[in-house]
Amino acid sequence: MVKPQGLLLVLSGPSGAGKGTICQMLREKLPDLAYSVSVTTRQARNGEVDGVNYFFKSVEEVKQMIAEGELLEYAEVYGNYYGTPRSYVMELLNQGKDVILEIDIQGAMQIKKRFPDGVFVFIVPPSLDELCSRIYKRGTDSEDVIKRRLASATGELAYANEYDYIVVNDVAQKATSKVLTIMEAERYRAARTYFIINEICHAAHKEREI
Amino acid sequence: MVKPQGLLLVLSGPSGAGKGTICQMLREKLPDLAYSVSVTTRQARNGEVDGVNYFFKSVEEVKQMIAEGELLEYAEVYGNYYGTPRSYVMELLNQGKDVILEIDIQGAMQIKKRFPDGVFVFIVPPSLDELCSRIYKRGTDSEDVIKRRLASATGELAYANEYDYIVVNDVAQKATSKVLTIMEAERYRAARTYFIINEICHAAHKEREI
Repeated sequence: MVKPQGLLLVLSGPSGAGKGTICQMLREKLPDLAYSVSVTTRQARNGEVDGVNYFFKSVEEVKQMIAEGELLEYAEVYGNYYGTPRSYVMELLNQGKDVILEIDIQGAMQIKKRFPDGVFVFIVPPSLDELCSRIYKRGTDSEDVIKRRLASATGELAYANEYDYIVVNDVAQKATSKVLTIMEAERYRAARTYFIINEICHAAHKEREI
Repeated sequence: MVKPQGLLLVLSGPSGAGKGTICQMLREKLPDLAYSVSVTTRQARNGEVDGVNYFFKSVEEVKQMIAEGELLEYAEVYGNYYGTPRSYVMELLNQGKDVILEIDIQGAMQIKKRFPDGVFVFIVPPSLDELCSRIYKRGTDSEDVIKRRLASATGELAYANEYDYIVVNDVAQKATSKVLTIMEAERYRAARTYFIINEICHAAHKEREI
């Protein structure tokens, strides 16, 4: 019996949509769900372990990975590179493990180009009002930052149709259960399950040989 | 709030896969699930009601429907036409009702051409051994017919990758619950849910006007 490849679940959406909470809840419900370890060029902080928190790399190493298509996505933030290592993710998937990536829209769009077989889920707030109050509640942002975040969130909503699924996050637990349903259904996708047909036919072929 | 269109669920697969049982179980679990009434040119039998069991039509009427693209699929069996009326199905879908069609592979492939937004589920037996014993159990077929059925079922399995989903029917109740999961996940498909984004943005637009 062939073991099917795991799912790469890409959870994305505008900031304040609540993808972090859903990601956390999924990991609690699915202890086997793997979480990709990112590559970074920034210095390791106290207590951070290479290969656990991040893969710490030099700028040259990361640039080479980019050149060789070895990052599913990457971004430069304040002069440091952050990225998702393709080979690490592929190894997990090939072991049959599901991998979750919680990522911004730019990152998700990069992954879609390089790994279109992923399951791309766009998390949206039930309304912009709600999005606004969630950003407010964080309490860490100034009025100006909030306004900018809100404007960019509205713009980001337009990316929804680049995704496979849209999940409205009204209540995080409900939204999480919707993502679980999507993950189950995706296992029955013909493209992922076709190996079963080969197995049935192969078995039939063997029967004939006997 | 826009009411989303219903799903057209097309349940298909080789004969003996058990799609009839799954269809029956789905209808029991989902009393609101609509079942398409077919058009036919055959004579109404005792007790059959026009518009309930079939829409009874003349050959000329059906030929005209075919010419006008008014049948999602049709077949000629022993000189009689049978078909699925597009307008009847579309009316149900536009009311937001889910519609199920249990149909052979040829019919499903015709529907896919004319209504690619349908959800196409291919039901397969767990093995050809099992398929064989199910066909035997029917007890109605001669050895020759069984052999022919089995050969054609093997050929039909190759159509699996034309479908959206493949569901292995080992235990009918489990397979039914898989189809229910697929139906739920399909509701979150970006193509079906994108109207929500318009609603969020429209609401935001109205807020700005006030």
